[in-house]
Amino acid sequence: MAICVVGHSNPDTDSVTSAIALATLLNAQGQEAKACMQSAVDNLNPESTMVLERFGLTAPEEVTDVAGQDVALVDFSDIGQGPANLADANVVTIVDHHKIGDVTTNNPILFRAEPVGCTGTVLNKMFKEAGVAIPKDIAGGMLAAILSDTVNFKSPTCTEDDKVAVSELKVVAGVDDTEALFMDMLKAKSSVDGVPAKDLLFRDYKDFDMKGNKVGVGQLELATIDQVAAIRDDLVKAMEEVKADGRHSVLLMLTDVVKEGTDLVVLSDDTALIEGAFSGKLEGGSMWIDGMMSRKKQTVPNLQNAFGC
Amino acid sequence: MAICVVGHSNPDTDSVTSAIALATLLNAQGQEAKACMQSAVDNLNPESTMVLERFGLTAPEEVTDVAGQDVALVDFSDIGQGPANLADANVVTIVDHHKIGDVTTNNPILFRAEPVGCTGTVLNKMFKEAGVAIPKDIAGGMLAAILSDTVNFKSPTCTEDDKVAVSELKVVAGVDDTEALFMDMLKAKSSVDGVPAKDLLFRDYKDFDMKGNKVGVGQLELATIDQVAAIRDDLVKAMEEVKADGRHSVLLMLTDVVKEGTDLVVLSDDTALIEGAFSGKLEGGSMWIDGMMSRKKQTVPNLQNAFGC
Repeated sequence: MAICVVGHSNPDTDSVTSAIALATLLNAQGQEAKACMQSAVDNLNPESTMVLERFGLTAPEEVTDVAGQDVALVDFSDIGQGPANLADANVVTIVDHHKIGDVTTNNPILFRAEPVGCTGTVLNKMFKEAGVAIPKDIAGGMLAAILSDTVNFKSPTCTEDDKVAVSELKVVAGVDDTEALFMDMLKAKSSVDGVPAKDLLFRDYKDFDMKGNKVGVGQLELATIDQVAAIRDDLVKAMEEVKADGRHSVLLMLTDVVKEGTDLVVLSDDTALIEGAFSGKLEGGSMWIDGMMSRKKQTVPNLQNAFGC
Repeated sequence: MAICVVGHSNPDTDSVTSAIALATLLNAQGQEAKACMQSAVDNLNPESTMVLERFGLTAPEEVTDVAGQDVALVDFSDIGQGPANLADANVVTIVDHHKIGDVTTNNPILFRAEPVGCTGTVLNKMFKEAGVAIPKDIAGGMLAAILSDTVNFKSPTCTEDDKVAVSELKVVAGVDDTEALFMDMLKAKSSVDGVPAKDLLFRDYKDFDMKGNKVGVGQLELATIDQVAAIRDDLVKAMEEVKADGRHSVLLMLTDVVKEGTDLVVLSDDTALIEGAFSGKLEGGSMWIDGMMSRKKQTVPNLQNAFGC
């Protein structure tokens, strides 16, 4: 039975391309593996769809339940972010760049997490260390993932290792201009034309448990906040619906990638707590936070501190 | 505040030398770190004491409580195997070769676990990847740890990576004859002269829950079973005392490292169950099981199957 290599729910470009890359590496090392994702091809976010097309990569197959299967996790190690019945699967490998989650195993396995900007950066090292050449198309996908996760090196999560990986992968992938690739991805990603507000909210959305309070945080990376001006009320309505489903707070980060800051839209049972978390003041339901680019490194840690986690 | 680099409770040679090695690597990478261990120097097991002396290594300082400290874990990732208040410490790095435990973090960290025979093998790779030369004395300690954990390559946990690491480390450490080093370690480890029977039983002892039954399994690795011939009755008496404290079974593995097998001494409420677990027949309270070397990979899984875990 082939190992199911899968990233987190609501897959992003790193989750998708890392599943492809690790499946390829495992196959090269004699372990039968297939790339999977927690999404139907048609529901994949526009950036990832564009990246797969650009580099001629086949989309991973959808997986929803992994009971009894051998699985390898990429880009997460929290049971809650995995497919159904992950706790009843046999986790054989984990490659990640996030905080250490609650997946445990009964046997020794390879668990490789590094505090870098992207799982693709870790995988690039693993290919090198294993002496396995990265196929050109997969190098392109990994390159795109690093540019996406590090917001073209501007995110505070970006490290020197990520820059080294990009410099190596661009050669293998035959990409001369990574700036142009990033802008093409940004345009695909930030396109809101004709997309329902709720789909935009869920484009990159995660729920967190904060001392027993359910807190949802979505992020839309935009070339300019003006892109969502016309649909702002619809976005708030979508947030209200999500909040009504038992959540203490729902936050939406409208991140201006060029200006390098976030307009943070907040719905909360305790707005003062959220304002305190970011030393800001809500006006008309949102506040501009200069320099806020990363949900993982900035928004979530501040919220955890405010909630006393 | 220096990072406290610490291995599991009841430290073995890998736990001790890996703490020294990782602290050295972190220091070389600009992070202030100190090697620690969950034992007073005087209580350290005889093999580890001999290894520290042989290579002129300073024993790590004892640590019992890590509340509020920055800590790096070597050779374990279970909160229960750490110092007191590990859950209130800030775990910054984990390097291991065991099953993935229940330590979680709030931030991305380096978590490097590999299914190899020894943490020293993983650390050897990390030094190489970081381009940091391993000091001669520390290479000796790491070499000894791999020989110990893999029982001189004979344990089923031993991998090709462990053999490669030994071949590299012996050059750095200036050790020509690893067989002789292993035999010296074995003699130190298996020395029973003047040691009370109960201390021998607890030299490497663990309790397990088997479907609600408490089962204790100790292991003594010996150069020859003859070493304990004169104190065999005392060992059984010590086992009887331990069993009387609410245990279903107490097993003592008298492992002959040269003959590669174990004389399994059994006290049990259900001897037929234990016999069935190993397809053996007790004679005079024990049975010889050819090839049995590893409690983790052989004895415990067979018991778990027999108890229906």
